[in-house]
Amino acid sequence: MRLTILGCFSATPHSNKNPTAQLLEMRGHHFLIDCGEGTQVQIRKAKAKFSEIKHIFISHLHGDHFFGLAGLISSFRLLGRESPLHVYGPKGIKEAITLLLKLGNSWTNYPLHFHELTSTESEVVFEDDKLSVKTIPLDHRVYTNGFLFVEKEKPRKLNPKAVEAFGIDKSQYHNIKQGKDGTTTLGKPIPNTQLTFDPEPPKKYAYCSDTAYFPSIVPLIDRATVLYHESTFLESHNELATKTKHATAKQAASIAQQAQVGTLILGHYSSRYKNLEDFITEASKVFENVQLGEDGKVFSF
Amino acid sequence: MRLTILGCFSATPHSNKNPTAQLLEMRGHHFLIDCGEGTQVQIRKAKAKFSEIKHIFISHLHGDHFFGLAGLISSFRLLGRESPLHVYGPKGIKEAITLLLKLGNSWTNYPLHFHELTSTESEVVFEDDKLSVKTIPLDHRVYTNGFLFVEKEKPRKLNPKAVEAFGIDKSQYHNIKQGKDGTTTLGKPIPNTQLTFDPEPPKKYAYCSDTAYFPSIVPLIDRATVLYHESTFLESHNELATKTKHATAKQAASIAQQAQVGTLILGHYSSRYKNLEDFITEASKVFENVQLGEDGKVFSF
Repeated sequence: MRLTILGCFSATPHSNKNPTAQLLEMRGHHFLIDCGEGTQVQIRKAKAKFSEIKHIFISHLHGDHFFGLAGLISSFRLLGRESPLHVYGPKGIKEAITLLLKLGNSWTNYPLHFHELTSTESEVVFEDDKLSVKTIPLDHRVYTNGFLFVEKEKPRKLNPKAVEAFGIDKSQYHNIKQGKDGTTTLGKPIPNTQLTFDPEPPKKYAYCSDTAYFPSIVPLIDRATVLYHESTFLESHNELATKTKHATAKQAASIAQQAQVGTLILGHYSSRYKNLEDFITEASKVFENVQLGEDGKVFSF
Repeated sequence: MRLTILGCFSATPHSNKNPTAQLLEMRGHHFLIDCGEGTQVQIRKAKAKFSEIKHIFISHLHGDHFFGLAGLISSFRLLGRESPLHVYGPKGIKEAITLLLKLGNSWTNYPLHFHELTSTESEVVFEDDKLSVKTIPLDHRVYTNGFLFVEKEKPRKLNPKAVEAFGIDKSQYHNIKQGKDGTTTLGKPIPNTQLTFDPEPPKKYAYCSDTAYFPSIVPLIDRATVLYHESTFLESHNELATKTKHATAKQAASIAQQAQVGTLILGHYSSRYKNLEDFITEASKVFENVQLGEDGKVFSF
């Protein structure tokens, strides 16, 4: 699992402060999460391939999370894309993007599918044999979802020495990886645990931005490998956070601590703060394993 | 007159190739012309003040000319703008921007006026006592206007030595600057030409992008001080230029030569070209005074 922070600042973009976008590589997928203005340039800077992005998840329709989407969709067209693109986001996103393309008489020459979200309950929006993506309903000024990316259980790992020692025929390997017991050539059953190792536990990535402090999400993101939680403000601006339905670094850490996640990544900083280390300092008092999201930074888990 | 090229590349943005936007300072105005994605960051890089921009002119509704507009309008709001903003552009621009703001529940707290254009004849879209702005109907794949910025005649310049020598009373200065004759204290008339110098000739800036080679614009941009004319292609891609309704460097130079402009600035280069000097070389064969538009470059006239 590899997470590239393309942008993690709130509101107005600056040359070294990009609005929200992330690229998540998980089990062969390259998911784009949010798409603020300038995201396509950030994708280029990260040396990621445009053609690998097949699913885009948009949390909410504030400009700093989706004003780069129409440009990216247009660039895909100009670069000759043929493969389908799926966009998941709040109701209204289809009308907006369609209108922008219509005005420029610039229809895509690849299939563009919108999956509009309206539910305030968590729902599965994408699933295949490797993973699933669920919404995390958040508490912001407009309808907003975070997204939970959950790997499916991997097959058990064959113990090569054990299968050889027991004389297990190769024709059984597939079933054994699926958890079935084995049988020797003499017909003796061998329990699966003697023939396999546990697979790596499935990984979970929880993306929560933008949101006020909202403990209802804790059960949903329970024990996530990584939680990205917005921290627009420090506690010194706690009232402003409440008013604008954003979170502080301390509140983000509290959610991480309650959900017992592996790592917390902070982001969506207000540009009023000069020293981002203050976010780490504040969050670390509540939750130990905190990382600072920064534009261009890559996290591998 | 000061022209800052904020972006002058066509189609897909790259980190060092910004889509079209320009800032024109003329007689106290700061006009923004086109607003591709990332323009607000380019404005910051140019150290221009957001608050000075009161009029934005959009040539056409292809993404590389207006996908930065919604973000800029939103940033104006976040930065506490109160003064009115006027946006001039093709019909449809109001619906698009309004929808994007509505989806984010992000109405501006300053007056935002749209002036939608539909005429295929040149028309005055803005005028005050110092200058006027006229459309230049162009020939592109969608409805497109260039813009002609024309200074009004300045008052005549008083010759301080002459008015003193003739003993002209100060009360007459205003009228003399307007072209009236003077009168000595003894009642003798003195012709205006003996009391004044010619003012600087009014300046004209013609912005023409995007367009195919379109000689119909020549009378309109006649003797412009500066002409910015798109040159997406070199002559080696002449057929592609015709097909996509863009111009070559040679064609841009031919328009400059026919209109007898002072200086031609090239831009809107396709990113296929590595060496922009080739554009100068090609255009210079037809028109002598050619400059290369480059992102961040400032021209003073």
